[in-house]
Amino acid sequence: MKRLSASHVAIVGLGLMGGSLAGALRGRCRTVIGIARRTETIEEALSRGLVDRGTTDLASGIHQADVVVLATPVRVILRLVDEIGRLLPEECLLMDVGSTKAQIAARMAALPDHVQPLGGHPMCGKETSGIEVAEPTLYQGHTFVLTPLPRTSDAALALGRGLVEAVGARPLILDPNRHDRLVATVSHLPYLLSCALVGTAEETAARDPTVWDVAASGFRDTSRLAASDVTMMLDILLTNREAVLEALNACDEQLRHLTCLLETCDEEGLRTVLSATRDRKLQTRNLKPET
Amino acid sequence: MKRLSASHVAIVGLGLMGGSLAGALRGRCRTVIGIARRTETIEEALSRGLVDRGTTDLASGIHQADVVVLATPVRVILRLVDEIGRLLPEECLLMDVGSTKAQIAARMAALPDHVQPLGGHPMCGKETSGIEVAEPTLYQGHTFVLTPLPRTSDAALALGRGLVEAVGARPLILDPNRHDRLVATVSHLPYLLSCALVGTAEETAARDPTVWDVAASGFRDTSRLAASDVTMMLDILLTNREAVLEALNACDEQLRHLTCLLETCDEEGLRTVLSATRDRKLQTRNLKPET
Repeated sequence: MKRLSASHVAIVGLGLMGGSLAGALRGRCRTVIGIARRTETIEEALSRGLVDRGTTDLASGIHQADVVVLATPVRVILRLVDEIGRLLPEECLLMDVGSTKAQIAARMAALPDHVQPLGGHPMCGKETSGIEVAEPTLYQGHTFVLTPLPRTSDAALALGRGLVEAVGARPLILDPNRHDRLVATVSHLPYLLSCALVGTAEETAARDPTVWDVAASGFRDTSRLAASDVTMMLDILLTNREAVLEALNACDEQLRHLTCLLETCDEEGLRTVLSATRDRKLQTRNLKPET
Repeated sequence: MKRLSASHVAIVGLGLMGGSLAGALRGRCRTVIGIARRTETIEEALSRGLVDRGTTDLASGIHQADVVVLATPVRVILRLVDEIGRLLPEECLLMDVGSTKAQIAARMAALPDHVQPLGGHPMCGKETSGIEVAEPTLYQGHTFVLTPLPRTSDAALALGRGLVEAVGARPLILDPNRHDRLVATVSHLPYLLSCALVGTAEETAARDPTVWDVAASGFRDTSRLAASDVTMMLDILLTNREAVLEALNACDEQLRHLTCLLETCDEEGLRTVLSATRDRKLQTRNLKPET
């Protein structure tokens, strides 16, 4: 297996994540080849200097690649993993940056033996999407989860780690199922809470549109994730359904408890819960100042 | 009633809101007098140039004031409104910047006739608190709700508007009850959702602390409000209990609907709800680009 600096890296999907990864890798590997469905996306990637070359043809884009990274919505990744195996060169490292990992790992397990599979999920992003908002600095300072399979070789994992570090991120090795349970709580649940908040405000607005005039930064930040790409989020929710339902259920219990304390005017009970919550929030801020 | 530029303005409470208001008004009125419980707070306000003078004695601080602004947690404002009436000079404008308005308006209605009452609520803030984080630019570009009472004179309302505009904010006149219902949805509900999210993550962390390593900007922003000052938030929740419970109930219905769609794998139903939510969120972003 080659070193990263000697590798041809093909990136399939040039949206926010793929476009940013391409730009971050350019100059750190032999060539970055961008693969997208639309010619306009390739042209934009070339004109922004995010790729060395680009194509809309998957087979020709990957046929000499040492590393292929799938950077599409999760269910497109699932389909690509099924299709791409026979097209990949010998000893090619196949990675992905999908937001859920268990279903992808299951499909990767069925890849032909000549391919080295490695799941990945960078813990960064924005609520905007598309090559227009891609930026090579996107990954810097963030955790980048890697989910090797039992069949993944040490050399393949080392190359994957090297790629993560080359874009300025911190590798974190996790089991795919464990990853999915954790992100259900801190990523997929926040999205759904954000959507429920916007839905509630929309209902209030139907009676009194002035509600938008009094919505300030608290509303803006708590509802930010509701602007996320719907296709991407649907794929995430539907490929991590059980863990997301568990997180929703746990959060429902938290909300019921708060509601009950408020209904009964239990001031001391409320103070205890809200103070503990505040302390924990301040601790997490200290733990991760920059992300 | 004097013009703002000729007025002595006393501000009771020099935390984030009061300290920032003091700094923003300084130079735009005759003097800004800061009133706080602790000598250290006065010293900090003086050394940062936020006030012209300061005192820990309420009576002497307000006895020559043309405008008095109460900038403490809501339940302290309620107590101050009861106590302060007989101490205020003739024709003094008594304002407040409390986050709920109906209970304050009810207490203000009982003020002696020689006082002009006017409720206020600036739609800005931070999750941090205290004079240390006060900044004179805090109010710029934000909506500042004013809730006049039937007894509030036109001249008093005009002076209140003038003060709001002097600190760079946009006055918005609202009935106190209507204000409270609106902010329950876009301010108090987001706080409780944020707390429920942190509580859920804390529960996950008790089983697997790695959850904090995969928490990224989505978690950070959706949980930001959980760091808010607990005494301030308790006062808000307990003085706006019914409207907050209604908002919690409406949000619970939204979450149940999303949960049900996910449980039944209703992809088209989910796509419809999440797309409508995203469109609404993008519209609100366009409406209020800077706040």
